[in-house]
Amino acid sequence: MDIFDEEKRVFLAKKDKSKKGSIDSGILNLVSLINSQQDYYSTSSCSGRIVLIEREEAKEKDKAKWLFSSHDPVNKSLFLKKLYEINLPEKTVWLRQEPLILHIRCRTLQSAFNLLNDVRKLGLKRSGVIAANKRVTIEIIGTERMDVPIAENRKFLIDENYLLYLIEKANAKLLLTKEKIKMLEKIF
Amino acid sequence: MDIFDEEKRVFLAKKDKSKKGSIDSGILNLVSLINSQQDYYSTSSCSGRIVLIEREEAKEKDKAKWLFSSHDPVNKSLFLKKLYEINLPEKTVWLRQEPLILHIRCRTLQSAFNLLNDVRKLGLKRSGVIAANKRVTIEIIGTERMDVPIAENRKFLIDENYLLYLIEKANAKLLLTKEKIKMLEKIF
Repeated sequence: MDIFDEEKRVFLAKKDKSKKGSIDSGILNLVSLINSQQDYYSTSSCSGRIVLIEREEAKEKDKAKWLFSSHDPVNKSLFLKKLYEINLPEKTVWLRQEPLILHIRCRTLQSAFNLLNDVRKLGLKRSGVIAANKRVTIEIIGTERMDVPIAENRKFLIDENYLLYLIEKANAKLLLTKEKIKMLEKIF
Repeated sequence: MDIFDEEKRVFLAKKDKSKKGSIDSGILNLVSLINSQQDYYSTSSCSGRIVLIEREEAKEKDKAKWLFSSHDPVNKSLFLKKLYEINLPEKTVWLRQEPLILHIRCRTLQSAFNLLNDVRKLGLKRSGVIAANKRVTIEIIGTERMDVPIAENRKFLIDENYLLYLIEKANAKLLLTKEKIKMLEKIF
């Protein structure tokens, strides 16, 4: 057993360290397919999501505070209900739809670039090899996104009609992200 | 002269093939610094921008139509004036602030990963090696962005106050992008 196989075994046996503590269901099948390959395993994944975050400008991720997160399209009235329960902060609140993101460790640089080639053909042009020292890792990232400031100084910046419109848009984009996951499943 | 040097010479001598036809001034200094290095040259660059684009959902870039583009912060009243002159389309019009993007060809995989290491330390975590077959290429991409639907079915979705607010936000984020360019200049 070489070092890649050993590290893969240890990684897949250990507890999920993400905030959520588990792989979200929308990407579980894809992650299983990846992990079943000899030369790859997934070290991190998100199937795309709709989030509300509170943050000062475009500062580092660590300084952002998550107010809401859903990996599935949201129900408009339930979402509004949740939103109105939030004690709006002074900082800007952003409604964001984020694309799928996957980190895949690869046995060799060659196996990384082979995979990257297939992935980029699917239109996932923001993907690349992000580490290659000891552990060759690919990041695959979708292109669907929306990033809208909706509240600031404890007040909403927009009216409810527009908010409902944004939720519809975010839901539609999130579904496009899910289609990308299905396309990725086919290459594994 | 090896093949990298020859291709670099040919590339830097030829006409700029971008829509704009030239490198935008905000990133010209950085591009010159990159091109002065033995092991690197830039094949594509954008210093970040504020754009208005018309498109159906998050479809391919090719299907989007550019209505406005500025690599510098925009003057609010001039921007509004331009916006009101646009014959609004049926498709969604998005106000977007896009981050800096750079493609850098590298002599070897080793020189690519050395550079990537420095770049990622600056917080440009979306950067990676995107091609490595014949031509090793790094993509460096910023994280600042905003992506807001502002019109659809020939009508604005938002009021002028919110529009002015969005322009301010986009300008502030664009300035953060320009700071990243300064930081990048230091590593070359």
